Amino acid sequence: MAVYTEVTDEELSAFIAQYDVGQLLSYKGIAEGVENSNFLVHTEKAYFILTLYEKRVNRDDLPFFLNLMQHLAAKGLSCPTPVVMKTGATLGELAGRPAAMVTFLEGMWVKRPKPVHCSGLGGGLAALHVAGADFAMTRRNSLSVASWRPLFSQSAARADEVKPGLRATIEQALDQLEADWPQDLPGGVIHADLFPDNVFFLGDRLSGLIDFYFACTDSFAYDLVICLNAWCFEPDQSFNVTKAQALLDAYQKVRPLEPAEIAALPVLARGAALRFLLTRLHDWLSVPEGALVTPKDPLEYLKKLQFHQDVDTVSAYGLAL
Amino acid sequence: MAVYTEVTDEELSAFIAQYDVGQLLSYKGIAEGVENSNFLVHTEKAYFILTLYEKRVNRDDLPFFLNLMQHLAAKGLSCPTPVVMKTGATLGELAGRPAAMVTFLEGMWVKRPKPVHCSGLGGGLAALHVAGADFAMTRRNSLSVASWRPLFSQSAARADEVKPGLRATIEQALDQLEADWPQDLPGGVIHADLFPDNVFFLGDRLSGLIDFYFACTDSFAYDLVICLNAWCFEPDQSFNVTKAQALLDAYQKVRPLEPAEIAALPVLARGAALRFLLTRLHDWLSVPEGALVTPKDPLEYLKKLQFHQDVDTVSAYGLAL
Repeated sequence: MAVYTEVTDEELSAFIAQYDVGQLLSYKGIAEGVENSNFLVHTEKAYFILTLYEKRVNRDDLPFFLNLMQHLAAKGLSCPTPVVMKTGATLGELAGRPAAMVTFLEGMWVKRPKPVHCSGLGGGLAALHVAGADFAMTRRNSLSVASWRPLFSQSAARADEVKPGLRATIEQALDQLEADWPQDLPGGVIHADLFPDNVFFLGDRLSGLIDFYFACTDSFAYDLVICLNAWCFEPDQSFNVTKAQALLDAYQKVRPLEPAEIAALPVLARGAALRFLLTRLHDWLSVPEGALVTPKDPLEYLKKLQFHQDVDTVSAYGLAL
Repeated sequence: MAVYTEVTDEELSAFIAQYDVGQLLSYKGIAEGVENSNFLVHTEKAYFILTLYEKRVNRDDLPFFLNLMQHLAAKGLSCPTPVVMKTGATLGELAGRPAAMVTFLEGMWVKRPKPVHCSGLGGGLAALHVAGADFAMTRRNSLSVASWRPLFSQSAARADEVKPGLRATIEQALDQLEADWPQDLPGGVIHADLFPDNVFFLGDRLSGLIDFYFACTDSFAYDLVICLNAWCFEPDQSFNVTKAQALLDAYQKVRPLEPAEIAALPVLARGAALRFLLTRLHDWLSVPEGALVTPKDPLEYLKKLQFHQDVDTVSAYGLAL
C-alpha cells in the first residue's frame, strides 16, 4: 500500500498546471509500491501516474532515474515516460516532496508467470540493455558485492534466530563470492529489480517495464540472473528449467551472451540470491512487533542460493554446453 | 486504505468477461474507502470502479444499494451507475466476495469546503431526495435513534476515559432525544453519510455523489443536518453560519423545507451529532494497541452536539424566522 503523503486538490491542481496536460479531472491514491506515494491522475489530456518520492529514495538519484526513463522511451522501449513541464524540467515538488508525473502504461503483472511470460521478459530485458547502451549517466550499484558484508554485519548476530546455522552459511557464501566475483563483464544500465510486479503484460504479450528506482550501472548478466531467481522458481522452490530456457533463449535472440557471461552465470546467480537474502533478512529482523506489513521471507532466497551452489554447469539453466 | 482482497489477473479477466466492456487493459488497487476493496479498472470501453464487498457490508443490503444507484442515475443524478452484466444482473462474485462494477465519476473531493461548495452540496442533496422519491425499495436506518442506547451501552463504562463526565453528558442527551425525536417528517431515501469525501467537484461545480453504502429510508431533514455537521464547522469547531446558509438556501431552491422540518432542525442536528459521537466513541475504544489506523476523534462530535444544545432558534443556522 502506498499513499504516505496526503495531497490537497488545490496543491495538486497547482502542480498539474505546470504541465501542458489540461485541467485536473480526478485522482486516486494507488495501493501499489512500497517506497513512494503514487496517484493515478486523470487530466483533460490523458491518464498519468504521479509519484511523490518519500524518504527512502535519495533525491540525488532522481535525475538518473527520470533521464533514464526518458532515454529508454525515446529508444522505443515501452516504459513510463516522464512528462516534461512547461519549464522543460521533469522533476517538481509537491507537498514538500520531490514529485514527477509519468505516462500511464496499460497492462497487468502476472502473479503466476508461465514460460511464455519468461520469454517475453527475456526479450524485454535484452531490449532494455541494448536501449540503455548509449545512456550517458551512470549510477553505482549500491547493493552489489562490496555492500553485502557491511549489510550483513547489521543482521549477523541475530541471523541464527531465523534459521540455526544461517550466519555461518552466509559468511561462507560471502567469502566465496568476494573472491570469485567476476569483473569486466559487459555492462551498462541494468534494472536490478525486475520481479514479476514490475513487468506488465496484455495477455501473453509484454506491454512494458516499470519501476526503475533500483536501476544502476552493472553487468548485464547480473540483471539476467536476478530475473532467473525471481521468475524461474516455483512456489515450492523447485527450479523450472523450461522457464529458465525460455528466459535465456529470448534474451539471446536480442542480445547474445558472450562466453565469459555464460561461464559467470552460476556465481552471479549465487550473488543475486545472496543480495535479496541479505536485504530480506535485514527487513525481517527490523520489523517492529505488531506491524501490519509482513516482510518477505528471507529463507526463500537461501534456498535459491543453495540451488545455485549445487550447479556444476550452465546446462542446469537449460543452456547448451 | 482499502485493498483487503487480492485478485489475480485471471480471476479479474474472467469476471470482466461477464460484462460487455471489452478486454481488461489494466487495474490498480485504490487507497480509498475503509469498508471494501476498490479497484480502478480500465477496459477497452472505459474506466470503471470495481468494488469487492468485505465483511462489514451486509450482503442482503447490496440489492438496495445497487438498485438505488441505478434508479438515481436513471433520474439524472450524477452518481456511480452499476454496470449491467450480459445476464442482466449487477451483482456478481469475485475472489469469494460479492462484487459490482460501477461507472467512473470524474471529480475530486474538497478538503477545505468553501461556501460555494456548501451551496453545490445543498442542491445535490435536494436533487438526491427528489430523485429518490419514487424508489420502491426501503431500508431501515440501523443507526437512528432506536439504536443509539444499545450502541452506547458497549462504550458507556469506558466513556469517561475519553473525557471525564462524557458518560453523563451522553446519557442526558439520549434521554432528551428519545423523548423529543420527531416522527412523521417528510422522508424517503437519504444518503446518511454525505461527508466531504463523498461529494465530488470539478472546480466549484458539483460533479457527483458517491458511496451509497449507508443509504436508507429516513427523514430528509435528518440527511440535511448530517451535512450541516460535516460541512459547516471549521477545524477549530466554530460554526460557520455563512456555509450553513449556503447549504440550506441551495437545498430549498430545489426542495423547500416544510415548517415542521425547519422547527425540527435543532433536535435533528443534536441527534446527528450524537450518532457520529457514538460510532466514533465505539471505534475509538475498540482500536487495538499499536494499530496503524488512527480512529476519528469522537470529541469533535461532542462539541457539535453542545453547539446544537445551545441553539434557541433556527436563526442560528442562518434561516429567517
